[in-house]
Amino acid sequence: MTTSANNLFQQPLKIMNVGVSTFAEALRQQDVTVIDVDWTPPAVPHLSHISNGLSIDDANQEAVTRMLQSRPLLSSLGIARDVIPGFTDHTILHAGPPITWDRMCGPMRGAVIGALIYEGLAKTPQQAESLAANGAITFAPCHAHNAVGPMAGIISPSMPVWIVECESIRTFSTLNEGLGRVLRYGAFGEDVFDRLHWMTDVLYPTLTDALAHNGPLDIRSLITQALHMGDDCHNRNRAATSLLLRTLGPALARTCPDNERLAQVLTFINDNDHFFLNVAMPAAKAMALAAEGVAGSTIVTTMARNGTDFGIHISGDPTRWFTAPAGIIEGLYLSGFSADDANPDIGDSTITETAGFGAFAMAAAPAIARFVGGTAQDALATTLQMYDICYAEHSQFTVPALEFRGTPVGIDVRLVMETGIVPRLNTGIAHKEPGIGMVGAGIVEAPHPCFVDAFEHISTW
Amino acid sequence: MTTSANNLFQQPLKIMNVGVSTFAEALRQQDVTVIDVDWTPPAVPHLSHISNGLSIDDANQEAVTRMLQSRPLLSSLGIARDVIPGFTDHTILHAGPPITWDRMCGPMRGAVIGALIYEGLAKTPQQAESLAANGAITFAPCHAHNAVGPMAGIISPSMPVWIVECESIRTFSTLNEGLGRVLRYGAFGEDVFDRLHWMTDVLYPTLTDALAHNGPLDIRSLITQALHMGDDCHNRNRAATSLLLRTLGPALARTCPDNERLAQVLTFINDNDHFFLNVAMPAAKAMALAAEGVAGSTIVTTMARNGTDFGIHISGDPTRWFTAPAGIIEGLYLSGFSADDANPDIGDSTITETAGFGAFAMAAAPAIARFVGGTAQDALATTLQMYDICYAEHSQFTVPALEFRGTPVGIDVRLVMETGIVPRLNTGIAHKEPGIGMVGAGIVEAPHPCFVDAFEHISTW
Repeated sequence: MTTSANNLFQQPLKIMNVGVSTFAEALRQQDVTVIDVDWTPPAVPHLSHISNGLSIDDANQEAVTRMLQSRPLLSSLGIARDVIPGFTDHTILHAGPPITWDRMCGPMRGAVIGALIYEGLAKTPQQAESLAANGAITFAPCHAHNAVGPMAGIISPSMPVWIVECESIRTFSTLNEGLGRVLRYGAFGEDVFDRLHWMTDVLYPTLTDALAHNGPLDIRSLITQALHMGDDCHNRNRAATSLLLRTLGPALARTCPDNERLAQVLTFINDNDHFFLNVAMPAAKAMALAAEGVAGSTIVTTMARNGTDFGIHISGDPTRWFTAPAGIIEGLYLSGFSADDANPDIGDSTITETAGFGAFAMAAAPAIARFVGGTAQDALATTLQMYDICYAEHSQFTVPALEFRGTPVGIDVRLVMETGIVPRLNTGIAHKEPGIGMVGAGIVEAPHPCFVDAFEHISTW
Repeated sequence: MTTSANNLFQQPLKIMNVGVSTFAEALRQQDVTVIDVDWTPPAVPHLSHISNGLSIDDANQEAVTRMLQSRPLLSSLGIARDVIPGFTDHTILHAGPPITWDRMCGPMRGAVIGALIYEGLAKTPQQAESLAANGAITFAPCHAHNAVGPMAGIISPSMPVWIVECESIRTFSTLNEGLGRVLRYGAFGEDVFDRLHWMTDVLYPTLTDALAHNGPLDIRSLITQALHMGDDCHNRNRAATSLLLRTLGPALARTCPDNERLAQVLTFINDNDHFFLNVAMPAAKAMALAAEGVAGSTIVTTMARNGTDFGIHISGDPTRWFTAPAGIIEGLYLSGFSADDANPDIGDSTITETAGFGAFAMAAAPAIARFVGGTAQDALATTLQMYDICYAEHSQFTVPALEFRGTPVGIDVRLVMETGIVPRLNTGIAHKEPGIGMVGAGIVEAPHPCFVDAFEHISTW
């Protein structure tokens, strides 16, 4: 008796590998035939010191050590305008590097339109568009406010947010709405608004009371456990969502006096395996912030996309964006949609890869192939390849299938330039038009030009 | 920066493989150096038909098809004496094949002593021992009553049990107590009795109401999902326990009016990652029962140990036990304990391997190496080797890391004899003395002589 998956598994794969051999080796480990084509990226000078004589390796070791020692705690929730520094009643935060309304992609426009109607600042999409276009709204990247938002990443004043703390660092993210027709994928309408209102009126106070009763949650520990349970904690959060729910369960029972409301909250979280993503992201942002600002460090501390541009930050100069056009995603599509419907790469969720999990830990999540496409071998090969561009291996996040080897962490711009390998990311896919929502999920590469620009900037240090 | 796990990973393993090459191939797939030593088991005749001309392959196909089509539902709970057929006020069920008190191992004696005191049939261990020895207690295998019990597997009259149903089949198992000093590992004492009383007085009615409100749960589906989340559903049930808790959460909230009691129940389950084992086992028993009684079938439908003997059933003659001395376990020990403290292999939990998961699905659970010892490569090799002695690949249970290949299922006594490969099992380790409890967990092989006897019996058909 033979299953079709087994047939697939038994088919010999034939693969051509161009350039660096890691990818090929990873596949050979799996007995896959690989033809190597000799190719090396244009030679770049190896940068070892900056002009004042400071060792870049020492700086990177310091930056990565800070990232690995960071232990973010999920401490509380709050309303965006009240808790996110610099927020005003007309602030709208968005994913990725800075962008003006006229350059925003469809799903981001859709999410902005939805947020303005949800906030009562506009009554119709037309009113919202003119409001957004006439300068009355202050747009800023989530990252500029220590926040992170998946997909469009829109955070408007009255939205509830998770608060993650690590020593003096505080980071923020909205609560995850689920998949399909949701604001962060650019959808708006009564169904979307009803869900957002329920999340604000019911979910937010219930979680607030439970978390206060339970005390702060060690998110690094939950991610560490989930990586041993088939999650990558970017596009697969089934185990981490389960662990979060199990952990908060007793506090939810003790603090929610209305058991029908409690049942609704438990049902909402049980129905959304991505619920933990919006907890993993601010935790990853806190880890990345801990690594920022080390003079001479070439470690990437932010990767983020607004659906038009992809941008990165580096530790040694963390306020400067290096940007390039957002990439096109290879993936699987929900029925009725195809690549023609897809917007380019969008969202702040690449903070997970920046912090050493997500696609960098895909070897721990072979089942993710059913969501983002490819095979379990591809997932393994992705993790193995990322070691070539990372400065370190994680001391907490480990991959059982690699005999508990630490995940690759601390992307070094120099290694990206020297190997020609760019970070691989997994991501959801939004419809390119406003108002529609999710159409699929897949794999995408960070655009090389960001790293070229960053490398040239580093060369001037 | 290099972790010690990484050092381990980078050490070249040197392995000698005796006989069949599957194990070696599995390791070679992982780039492990393997030396083959040519050895073949004593040749045995290939049995293709029984004396009346019936094809054994046809019979095995029928048995395995029934096993794979079985879809057990967790339907309710009850008290052993009320719901298990043939139970009396003096019945004590135990794990494994039939055994008398004088031949029972230490942990089984400990669990019997504990059960008799818990039932109020004895006041002291001495009273319990004389009661057990003087014939006043009716001992019988759990399997003889369509029940299964982990480790000592003791089921006494007033214990609450899960009820699993699949068409006309009903199977039973106690609720899982957790690890350490627990009755099923042979421990007794106030701590053990207090937990058992709480489980009967608080946990049992709470779960009964929630399950009645929720409706029957598809356990095959939960196992299928958990195998994609790093469980094998024998000695790793972290994901499956999480899924069970998330699924029942809303019903628990709606049916438990006392939220402090609800919080205690949620805490007990959250603190016990093995809670799902006692749900997986009766589900596996129901699958195995579906395959029983097919004339001419050489498929194993029971593997069970009482800590003294290991026994199997085969589909074509399911009432007959084929037994041999229980094996010695290779494993990891809790601090303060060693192999000198270990009892031989014990428990009905090998019903999981019989039904195509547990150690047979260990390739899906690389993190289990931290609990039972060995490496992730060993776990992968175990699953790959079991394909050599199984008649089929599972249509529901799949291994993402093997590109969703179905797990090996349907152990064929003929293949065990022809290959010389015996089923590999993972298991907890009980202290050999009564009254102590769990000392570790590990890997053990089913004893070859059971299969020799079964094969000789099949040859007479």
